[in-house]
Amino acid sequence: MAHIQVQADDIDLDSPLLVEGLPGAGLVGKIAADHLVEEFDMDYYGSVHCEGLPEVAVYEGEQSDIRPPVRIYADDDRDLLVLQSDVPISPTRASEFATCVTGWFDANDVFPLYLSGLSEEKDGVPEMYGVATGAGHDRIEAEGIVPPRQGGIVTGPTGALLNHAAETGFDSVGLIVETEAQFPDPEAARVLLEHGIGPLADIDVETDALMERADEIQEAREELAKRLHEADEESTQAQPIRGFQ
Amino acid sequence: MAHIQVQADDIDLDSPLLVEGLPGAGLVGKIAADHLVEEFDMDYYGSVHCEGLPEVAVYEGEQSDIRPPVRIYADDDRDLLVLQSDVPISPTRASEFATCVTGWFDANDVFPLYLSGLSEEKDGVPEMYGVATGAGHDRIEAEGIVPPRQGGIVTGPTGALLNHAAETGFDSVGLIVETEAQFPDPEAARVLLEHGIGPLADIDVETDALMERADEIQEAREELAKRLHEADEESTQAQPIRGFQ
Amino acid sequence: MAHIQVQADDIDLDSPLLVEGLPGAGLVGKIAADHLVEEFDMDYYGSVHCEGLPEVAVYEGEQSDIRPPVRIYADDDRDLLVLQSDVPISPTRASEFATCVTGWFDANDVFPLYLSGLSEEKDGVPEMYGVATGAGHDRIEAEGIVPPRQGGIVTGPTGALLNHAAETGFDSVGLIVETEAQFPDPEAARVLLEHGIGPLADIDVETDALMERADEIQEAREELAKRLHEADEESTQAQPIRGFQ
Amino acid sequence: MAHIQVQADDIDLDSPLLVEGLPGAGLVGKIAADHLVEEFDMDYYGSVHCEGLPEVAVYEGEQSDIRPPVRIYADDDRDLLVLQSDVPISPTRASEFATCVTGWFDANDVFPLYLSGLSEEKDGVPEMYGVATGAGHDRIEAEGIVPPRQGGIVTGPTGALLNHAAETGFDSVGLIVETEAQFPDPEAARVLLEHGIGPLADIDVETDALMERADEIQEAREELAKRLHEADEESTQAQPIRGFQ
Amino acid sequence: MAHIQVQADDIDLDSPLLVEGLPGAGLVGKIAADHLVEEFDMDYYGSVHCEGLPEVAVYEGEQSDIRPPVRIYADDDRDLLVLQSDVPISPTRASEFATCVTGWFDANDVFPLYLSGLSEEKDGVPEMYGVATGAGHDRIEAEGIVPPRQGGIVTGPTGALLNHAAETGFDSVGLIVETEAQFPDPEAARVLLEHGIGPLADIDVETDALMERADEIQEAREELAKRLHEADEESTQAQPIRGFQ
Repeated sequence: MAHIQVQADDIDLDSPLLVEGLPGAGLVGKIAADHLVEEFDMDYYGSVHCEGLPEVAVYEGEQSDIRPPVRIYADDDRDLLVLQSDVPISPTRASEFATCVTGWFDANDVFPLYLSGLSEEKDGVPEMYGVATGAGHDRIEAEGIVPPRQGGIVTGPTGALLNHAAETGFDSVGLIVETEAQFPDPEAARVLLEHGIGPLADIDVETDALMERADEIQEAREELAKRLHEADEESTQAQPIRGFQ
Repeated sequence: MAHIQVQADDIDLDSPLLVEGLPGAGLVGKIAADHLVEEFDMDYYGSVHCEGLPEVAVYEGEQSDIRPPVRIYADDDRDLLVLQSDVPISPTRASEFATCVTGWFDANDVFPLYLSGLSEEKDGVPEMYGVATGAGHDRIEAEGIVPPRQGGIVTGPTGALLNHAAETGFDSVGLIVETEAQFPDPEAARVLLEHGIGPLADIDVETDALMERADEIQEAREELAKRLHEADEESTQAQPIRGFQ
Repeated sequence: MAHIQVQADDIDLDSPLLVEGLPGAGLVGKIAADHLVEEFDMDYYGSVHCEGLPEVAVYEGEQSDIRPPVRIYADDDRDLLVLQSDVPISPTRASEFATCVTGWFDANDVFPLYLSGLSEEKDGVPEMYGVATGAGHDRIEAEGIVPPRQGGIVTGPTGALLNHAAETGFDSVGLIVETEAQFPDPEAARVLLEHGIGPLADIDVETDALMERADEIQEAREELAKRLHEADEESTQAQPIRGFQ
Repeated sequence: MAHIQVQADDIDLDSPLLVEGLPGAGLVGKIAADHLVEEFDMDYYGSVHCEGLPEVAVYEGEQSDIRPPVRIYADDDRDLLVLQSDVPISPTRASEFATCVTGWFDANDVFPLYLSGLSEEKDGVPEMYGVATGAGHDRIEAEGIVPPRQGGIVTGPTGALLNHAAETGFDSVGLIVETEAQFPDPEAARVLLEHGIGPLADIDVETDALMERADEIQEAREELAKRLHEADEESTQAQPIRGFQ
Repeated sequence: MAHIQVQADDIDLDSPLLVEGLPGAGLVGKIAADHLVEEFDMDYYGSVHCEGLPEVAVYEGEQSDIRPPVRIYADDDRDLLVLQSDVPISPTRASEFATCVTGWFDANDVFPLYLSGLSEEKDGVPEMYGVATGAGHDRIEAEGIVPPRQGGIVTGPTGALLNHAAETGFDSVGLIVETEAQFPDPEAARVLLEHGIGPLADIDVETDALMERADEIQEAREELAKRLHEADEESTQAQPIRGFQ
């Protein structure tokens, strides 16, 4: 049942790099990934149907299309994919989710870039570190991305994705950036985009707009928390998604 | 096991439109759907037996018939169906429910119209938006129903129904109306009936009675909450359903 | 595994009527059913072994026999069965229970009479209403039992039994009597016995003793609550059943 | 998977009587059973491996052997078995446990003697009653053990064992003794040993030591509660078992 | 699915002894095991993939490798293995875990040494006791390791491992050391290393560094508790592992 369904057959990709943007500490991955989709005006490419994902219906402003909450966007010029999610992945289903999407990555020669915030009191520009599995080691070394100074652990769905890659010998890179975990952190997302995603994907991404949107992002995060809470309630409801979708 | 059982074999329908009336935010769908059943004196057409629906017995006043809590009513002159429910659908079973009823819709060439309240502080007449899957896009455009101004998410069983339609490429329309989610909202239901259901189903429905019943609806809602609570208790009990059944 | 095991092979029954006496609102069904067992000195006929019934051991005073908590008693002269339970049926297992016992009713040509209390503030003699499935309609009409004045819903195991009968087209009658749901209500049980069970089963039952036992019944109910609570505790324990077993 | 594994092949038993000593109200069964093991210096005979039993490791003082928490001890001269447990049996697993051990009893021609405390305010020497299934009736009558004066219910694992025996027609006896359920009750255990177990097993057991150990037993019970609580915690731990193991 | 995957094929071991270092009371096993890995600069040998282990990704300082949270380290000169875990094993999965790793121990001729803290108020140097299954008895006797003075019970994953060894007749030794269960206890770990692990594994291990690290260990433990808590939260996060990894 679990599968990823390509919705745009006319997009050609050649061993693309995928930026994972699941909601996590500081929303660093989601902010960076959503920014890529908007900045490059990426195309809706695939819908993600894995066991345990909440079956809710998402719509964008000024459009009447219904989409699933976890989607893949593509930019064929840049050979780039983004995994975007409007809902958090339950930690109890993280393992199933990892198995579900990694299978598709493997079958389609996708190289994933996993993003995680490291909860730290920051001092100046947040530091960013790289971890890797398989051939990912060469990629981070080639870009001069340093390993973490201190040992640590990545939890949640991104932890499951990295764990799964390590177990099955699948190539991947993980970027870990210092963040204030309790608040959306566009500054940390900027560091990921400029010093990690940019060089690794060989793309140039403008991040000025990102910095101007701090307020909007804070509001979006409150919506996310509310939405998450209300998805547990018994009644059907439509809710606005304000901000940087 | 899960199935919909036709109880009235003598009703002929030709690609009917179905109005979904599950309890949700503002009870907008339930109020609109129940009003159609009463106003058009619709016939009891089918009983819905999907996994996870509470197995309770419903009876109407002045009649000794026992019916299931989720039922389909029909009006063959108007080629119209209504999905009526006296119980909320548990969000943990929403996916199973969506699969169960969509299968029957598909096999019987039913075009569903899903209804959802959008929690907003309203100012004047509530606004109504349309979303769609497949051929539903043509239908809302033909009636001039506009897409949502802002992105959003539909949760609960109606969200699962729309998600399921999008995933499987099944034709459907979703109507989203501004509502005060915490209270039954006959005004929002009126907007759905006049500006959405009416044109899409090509029917003319009198809504004056709807507006006069605000008190009755409030009482009915309190019963619904109580019934929901007591269904979890350990003992058998009969409870009155006051109001607009 | 689930089954009903006949314990007395020498009892001959011909299309018997069964009075269901599961604990519910006002204990109306249990009080009426237990009264029939005692008043007619009915014989222990069958043990009920359905999935989800608590596996506890019941004994009567002055006897050393061990019996299951849910049992069927018989009176072959009157062609009467009673379903007696010393434990509440968990609402989460109500559906399984309904399937389990209805199968046996069907195979043995048993006509069930389901009993439910309707939570109301009473004024004078409690009113009693009849609902039905299949050929049950003729039976209640023949005895002049009126339908409920107002629509309503029957929850719990009795609701599941009625729902199951309606779904599968099995003949049955449900009697609904006004009761004060929070207290054992011998007066409501008397109405069931005199105006419902008596005519439908064509039996004459003395109810004077029932009215004299109000105190005893109150005490029994407190035991029932305590027993229910303690069945969840971790240790084995024997507990007295005071009252009208 | 579930089974009882004989650990001492050199012990010959001929239709032995087994005394069940699971923790329950007043610890009456456990106190009586543990006393038999100690007083007769019984041999470790079998380990009990049923689904749902906590997988903990038990050791005795001055010995380095590891044993499971539920064990059977034997005395071949007296044709006696004792079922000893250092852990409570979860009521949600009581049914599986009953099926698991009853199968072994049946296959090995074991006659079980189930023990239960009846929560009562005692006045003088606690009263003891007998219940039975199958040929157990003859045994209690032969020893003049009277049935309970009043009806009641046995819950927990012992209730499940008696229920299972009644359902499958397996021979057994249950002894029910008045106890103060909240405290270990060596006096009630003495009554079981002298007036019930002694005559039924045709053994003579000295109970003076039992009465002298009231303090030790109270301490052991507190350990049991603590152990039970801590078994739910996440970390491995060794804990002393003080008292009458 | 559950398995242990050897990650270093070039390490030759001949019936190695394995020191189990799962987090438990006083962290005695984890402190001792982690110390061996560091002191002997042991090689990463195998990754442990058993059902129920949290799927998180672990990294060490100054390295970009991703590893699973439960790992085996090897020292082929000393024929020594260490089972290291950065996460607690849930007690509800302890049985599955025991079956999973014991199978591998058995297939690879591994002799396990299980470690447990005994919660006691200590007076001077903590006492250490040995328990055993099968041929483990000879090993502890040969080293003069005494049995526990008093009976007791080992709970948690280590209890499940010992229980499993006893049930299946698998050779093993368990060392039980007095500890203050609520705090990391390097002194108790030192006793295990010097008086238990050292003689049994025939190794000489320097423990001075262990004693100097009390503060670091306390800090690490607080991290462990925090990490455990946060692994339950819904978002992905990287967290530092400070201390003696």
